[in-house]
Amino acid sequence: MSKTDWRRICFDLLADDRRDARIGHRLLSTLIIISVFACAAAIMLVTVPGLDARTVFWCDRLREATDILFTAEYLLRIWIAPAYAHSGRVGATTMRRRYMSSFLGVVDLLVILPFWLNLVVPFPRDLFLATEMFTLFKLARYTPGLPLVAAVLRREARGLTAALGAAGVLLVVASCIMYMLEHDAQPEVFGSIPKALWWGIVTVGSVGYGDMIPITPLGKIFNGVIILIGVGTIAIPAGLLASGFAEEIKRREFMVTWRAVASLPLFHNLDASSIAEIASLLKPQVVPSGTAIVRRDERAEAMFFIMAGEVEVEILPKPVVLGSGQHFGEIALLRRTDRTATVSAITDCRLLALEVTDFQRLLQVHPTIKEHIDRLAAERLEQRKTAEGLSPPAV
Amino acid sequence: MSKTDWRRICFDLLADDRRDARIGHRLLSTLIIISVFACAAAIMLVTVPGLDARTVFWCDRLREATDILFTAEYLLRIWIAPAYAHSGRVGATTMRRRYMSSFLGVVDLLVILPFWLNLVVPFPRDLFLATEMFTLFKLARYTPGLPLVAAVLRREARGLTAALGAAGVLLVVASCIMYMLEHDAQPEVFGSIPKALWWGIVTVGSVGYGDMIPITPLGKIFNGVIILIGVGTIAIPAGLLASGFAEEIKRREFMVTWRAVASLPLFHNLDASSIAEIASLLKPQVVPSGTAIVRRDERAEAMFFIMAGEVEVEILPKPVVLGSGQHFGEIALLRRTDRTATVSAITDCRLLALEVTDFQRLLQVHPTIKEHIDRLAAERLEQRKTAEGLSPPAV
Amino acid sequence: MSKTDWRRICFDLLADDRRDARIGHRLLSTLIIISVFACAAAIMLVTVPGLDARTVFWCDRLREATDILFTAEYLLRIWIAPAYAHSGRVGATTMRRRYMSSFLGVVDLLVILPFWLNLVVPFPRDLFLATEMFTLFKLARYTPGLPLVAAVLRREARGLTAALGAAGVLLVVASCIMYMLEHDAQPEVFGSIPKALWWGIVTVGSVGYGDMIPITPLGKIFNGVIILIGVGTIAIPAGLLASGFAEEIKRREFMVTWRAVASLPLFHNLDASSIAEIASLLKPQVVPSGTAIVRRDERAEAMFFIMAGEVEVEILPKPVVLGSGQHFGEIALLRRTDRTATVSAITDCRLLALEVTDFQRLLQVHPTIKEHIDRLAAERLEQRKTAEGLSPPAV
Amino acid sequence: MSKTDWRRICFDLLADDRRDARIGHRLLSTLIIISVFACAAAIMLVTVPGLDARTVFWCDRLREATDILFTAEYLLRIWIAPAYAHSGRVGATTMRRRYMSSFLGVVDLLVILPFWLNLVVPFPRDLFLATEMFTLFKLARYTPGLPLVAAVLRREARGLTAALGAAGVLLVVASCIMYMLEHDAQPEVFGSIPKALWWGIVTVGSVGYGDMIPITPLGKIFNGVIILIGVGTIAIPAGLLASGFAEEIKRREFMVTWRAVASLPLFHNLDASSIAEIASLLKPQVVPSGTAIVRRDERAEAMFFIMAGEVEVEILPKPVVLGSGQHFGEIALLRRTDRTATVSAITDCRLLALEVTDFQRLLQVHPTIKEHIDRLAAERLEQRKTAEGLSPPAV
Repeated sequence: MSKTDWRRICFDLLADDRRDARIGHRLLSTLIIISVFACAAAIMLVTVPGLDARTVFWCDRLREATDILFTAEYLLRIWIAPAYAHSGRVGATTMRRRYMSSFLGVVDLLVILPFWLNLVVPFPRDLFLATEMFTLFKLARYTPGLPLVAAVLRREARGLTAALGAAGVLLVVASCIMYMLEHDAQPEVFGSIPKALWWGIVTVGSVGYGDMIPITPLGKIFNGVIILIGVGTIAIPAGLLASGFAEEIKRREFMVTWRAVASLPLFHNLDASSIAEIASLLKPQVVPSGTAIVRRDERAEAMFFIMAGEVEVEILPKPVVLGSGQHFGEIALLRRTDRTATVSAITDCRLLALEVTDFQRLLQVHPTIKEHIDRLAAERLEQRKTAEGLSPPAV
Repeated sequence: MSKTDWRRICFDLLADDRRDARIGHRLLSTLIIISVFACAAAIMLVTVPGLDARTVFWCDRLREATDILFTAEYLLRIWIAPAYAHSGRVGATTMRRRYMSSFLGVVDLLVILPFWLNLVVPFPRDLFLATEMFTLFKLARYTPGLPLVAAVLRREARGLTAALGAAGVLLVVASCIMYMLEHDAQPEVFGSIPKALWWGIVTVGSVGYGDMIPITPLGKIFNGVIILIGVGTIAIPAGLLASGFAEEIKRREFMVTWRAVASLPLFHNLDASSIAEIASLLKPQVVPSGTAIVRRDERAEAMFFIMAGEVEVEILPKPVVLGSGQHFGEIALLRRTDRTATVSAITDCRLLALEVTDFQRLLQVHPTIKEHIDRLAAERLEQRKTAEGLSPPAV
Repeated sequence: MSKTDWRRICFDLLADDRRDARIGHRLLSTLIIISVFACAAAIMLVTVPGLDARTVFWCDRLREATDILFTAEYLLRIWIAPAYAHSGRVGATTMRRRYMSSFLGVVDLLVILPFWLNLVVPFPRDLFLATEMFTLFKLARYTPGLPLVAAVLRREARGLTAALGAAGVLLVVASCIMYMLEHDAQPEVFGSIPKALWWGIVTVGSVGYGDMIPITPLGKIFNGVIILIGVGTIAIPAGLLASGFAEEIKRREFMVTWRAVASLPLFHNLDASSIAEIASLLKPQVVPSGTAIVRRDERAEAMFFIMAGEVEVEILPKPVVLGSGQHFGEIALLRRTDRTATVSAITDCRLLALEVTDFQRLLQVHPTIKEHIDRLAAERLEQRKTAEGLSPPAV
Repeated sequence: MSKTDWRRICFDLLADDRRDARIGHRLLSTLIIISVFACAAAIMLVTVPGLDARTVFWCDRLREATDILFTAEYLLRIWIAPAYAHSGRVGATTMRRRYMSSFLGVVDLLVILPFWLNLVVPFPRDLFLATEMFTLFKLARYTPGLPLVAAVLRREARGLTAALGAAGVLLVVASCIMYMLEHDAQPEVFGSIPKALWWGIVTVGSVGYGDMIPITPLGKIFNGVIILIGVGTIAIPAGLLASGFAEEIKRREFMVTWRAVASLPLFHNLDASSIAEIASLLKPQVVPSGTAIVRRDERAEAMFFIMAGEVEVEILPKPVVLGSGQHFGEIALLRRTDRTATVSAITDCRLLALEVTDFQRLLQVHPTIKEHIDRLAAERLEQRKTAEGLSPPAV
């Protein structure tokens, strides 16, 4: 096998994140995840005082083994980086530099760096342990919802910073006032403003360790007010993030719709605004399980994209099941015909319907799209005559 | 009575969850709920030290009585499981296996298992008490809002897992750093990283027991930063759940609308996409109490579905009250006529109006629906002539 | 003056909640609010040990004075209750019973009851003080946002109950498990399941007093898990309430729109569904301060409802300022004409525009509304000729 | 240079908040922000007991230096205030009074006042430190998300006040009841209702210092109930703020759209309602990076406003990059033509498309807008012939 073939195999093993990933990739991912946890557990364990020498010995061996594994992984990832390129235009070196400077690339390096540096110049033990703990950040690669959380935090960064800043200013001012109120009564506890700041953050964050408590009546009343403000301080980021998540999820759904439309061969090569135009015609439908979505021999009046759930196309010899991301009934857009099969929802389904009447109206207004569709439809119908059955079932 | 009749009666007693459930079912439900609470209270009470022997004796009897009741309930539920089947196609054994492997079926079994096992092999007392506590999960059957909460948790599982995972990683890393900062100052308190983890979770969760507090300036500053991050950690799931609840409630309302349309005899046998088409024509209306929705002798221009609230149809001899889930004025869809009665909102109402003009436009575009409606309308009008008064009042 | 006149005056003093309430009503409200706070302060003060006799004496006098004031208020409110009736159909006794059984009526009674009962049969002091504290509930009458909060709590009651119930079950089960884990290590602290419940609620509610802390490793790990679940438990009601507030505020805005349309003399006597029809035509517009909304001598193509903010109508001799709830430009709906004055936004404004073209299309579809409008328009134009200037400026 | 020129330079240095602010302004802002932090740090440091005299000396000098800087800044800001006026109609004195009575103006004064007053009449040291802490409020000027947070707090003020008020009443009543329950068991701890109030606020705010804990069974049960209510009390403002942020962000986006339309020379001088009309025609589009939005030689059927992201116009000799707030393709609105260049999205873009067909339909309905556009279009096309290339690329 050539070098490119080997790289492809490694790429499939390490970086394949399609939904139907191969068994090899899944096994390797599991191995890495287990290694991360094992390494972290070993590090934590060795700090427990009075541990017997044998446990410490095996913990150190385990840590070394995982560090060597992660080193191999890091080198492999650098080697296969060019395989990520979508087109041939980006050079191999660029792709490698891109990986090495990405968040996960930096983490992959930081994880193994202290181990190898330690061989050269011994680290202080505490610092060594703390840096090794960065291993846990490798898990980010295997946490599917993280990009959503990160995107929302980025989106609401301005509001969150403002809320944080306002809370910080109030915190410092409140600590000053509390210092004034309690300093004479408890010169030990509220000894300086920096000490009072500790009271402030513990109170505003509603943690309440209980090591610094005002004793004067005025101090107690002021503390009560600060607790109320603290509740609001917690509520503001919650509110910001709630509206951020709602917006981001809506935006992602639009992108999914857009991609569903763009992936249809019929709409291939249309420009972005035409696709957005078509996407805006789609009507969301929620269909309970067990309901017929289209019936055989009825007039075909719409095509459907499946957003969630599964449908069953009742064709012979064996019904075909279509799932999220697939579509059916697109023949309706090309010619006025009857349904050739019944399609039923197996589970509760979320569909997007593109109705023929809306679609025809669009074609009248946008002659560019019409020409494009007509040409493709002609080709497609020609193909169907020669290669019936190869494409997904046309309902 | 035959076995099937008896099973029907038991089914009605145990499993009837229609809104107008019979008195027998309500009494039995109340009995089971009270038994659950009594059983839990008895278990908790016997652990109190220094309890007099008589109370312990009666607590044990109470526990035994409820366990026998729950055993009878479990066996009955297995027996009546086939009555849940909507059609004859699913066999009795399948339905029974389905119940026994459902969440509530497993809970029903776990609740009684320790009691009977204990008779054979005595359990350690503590474990026995803890398993008996699963009794409380039986309450899930009688908590109406639980499916909504469960659906949202499932829907947002990916985001919540990501937030939890990110919080976990930060927690471990923070604990390591805190161990580094405080280990020398308080070798007893921050004795190992696992011990520091206890500080971490207590701080990030904003619980703050106050048993582990940093004393070095750097430790205190770092603690303050972690408290702020902890506030964000609490805010992220709140934000995710808020947007999840909003989406789920919207989806449920769509399903309710869908079912309201599908339940109308006029739209019987229409396929899912036609019903969705009609549902999309519905216009929400909020009507304050005391307002006339339609007036007698005015032109009928819409039909109405009642989503919430109650309306009064002023017909002789006695006004009829219609509530949530019912509809009126559907005659308007079939022929141009005048209202035969005034309909007023008794309470603030949420209605969905289906306007004749929208409906006619739909029929022109979708000849399939038109044929279907025309045929049904003819039948329906024929019926009305012969059986006036049996159907709900046609306004 | 007649008894009815006196009652009207008392009603205006006590119960007038229009926006431009008279000075007398405001003074009386302020007096009652101050009395409530004074009464509550006096009650709290007398419990402080070591208070000098004179302060106690004056506190008691203050409490007696407010109780007598509240008694007078209660009797007056009963007397004026009939004045609340919107029509003559509800009898005076019914209106009085309605007030006395309402939440505020019961509070008004409970506030004064212990004072008078105490004169007959002396109360235990503690109970007396606690019941007197109900005085504070009188403030509900003067808190404008409370109905919104109450409506959302009612709306989300099912979900909140489910979340609370689930939290409760988890709490009890967690406490049992914690009892099992910690009972042997700390027989004093975790002495029984009821005692462990105290740990549970303090932890799940993220309060963390710190008086019950697990010491075994398993207990600490389990405690960490419970803290995480506790964070979710707090997040669920926050999420539910967020979506509830969003829905309720949207619904209230619809009602405001509906009322704005219904209050227009032009649409007087239209039935609810016609008004909803017109309301659905309204287009929201946000206009920055300082912008001209309509310009003199331009063609009148829409009328406007002011939802928030203020506009200035530049008519001679002095510009007229219109605010929230008012409208302008309605003449445009009746005849094709030019604007007779420029209208500018003084502050940022939220407007609802009703465009002539939409309105004309509506009239074509709904002949009933058309007839109604034509008749009213004729009358109105006639009036304008005879009484120009009395109505708000017609732009 | 004249006085006005100097003032303009100072204005640019101090108050320029355009996105591409000059380097001088940025340096000055950074200097002020650093001074604020340095001043606050110095104040906090001097309160630490046992500090060596030299540190105290330099802290005091630093504080004096920043106070003099802030005094100079304050005087300059008063001097340049007239430069804020948008038109010549507002006098210089008015603008200065407006600044001095604004929030930031008052803060700027309060920051320096104690320093100068202290020179005349020595302040008590504690009060002096606390007032100096107001320096931190100067940061509000440099926190971009703060107006959003402030606007939402104002918007939801009624609901938040109601929630706060209800929480306050429940708090006081709960404290009374707790006093009743625990007073006899712990006469020292729960010595009076004001003392019990401290327990109440610490518990409801879920802070839990742990200094006041009930010991009677009834007290503990009641405490548990109050903790649950406390969780709800925190959830209500979170819910209110979440829905408030969602609304406010939507409103701001509408204002941005409105301004984008209003800023187009083509729509210059249109009145607010015409601009709102056009804004309502805009269709949001999300375009993934790398996609062609319009293609050369295709029919021009829409113009686009860029809301977020960047696009590249492929014109010779060098592609032009357009970003947020800019637009392209507006020639399509004026005459039926083909695209003269391909425009591709460089990053993920949010666009607003104004389609020609929608725009033509609008012109037919609103002859006023049509006349206006026709006149401007004629002028514009004339200009283009004479000054091709000066305006942004017309696609």
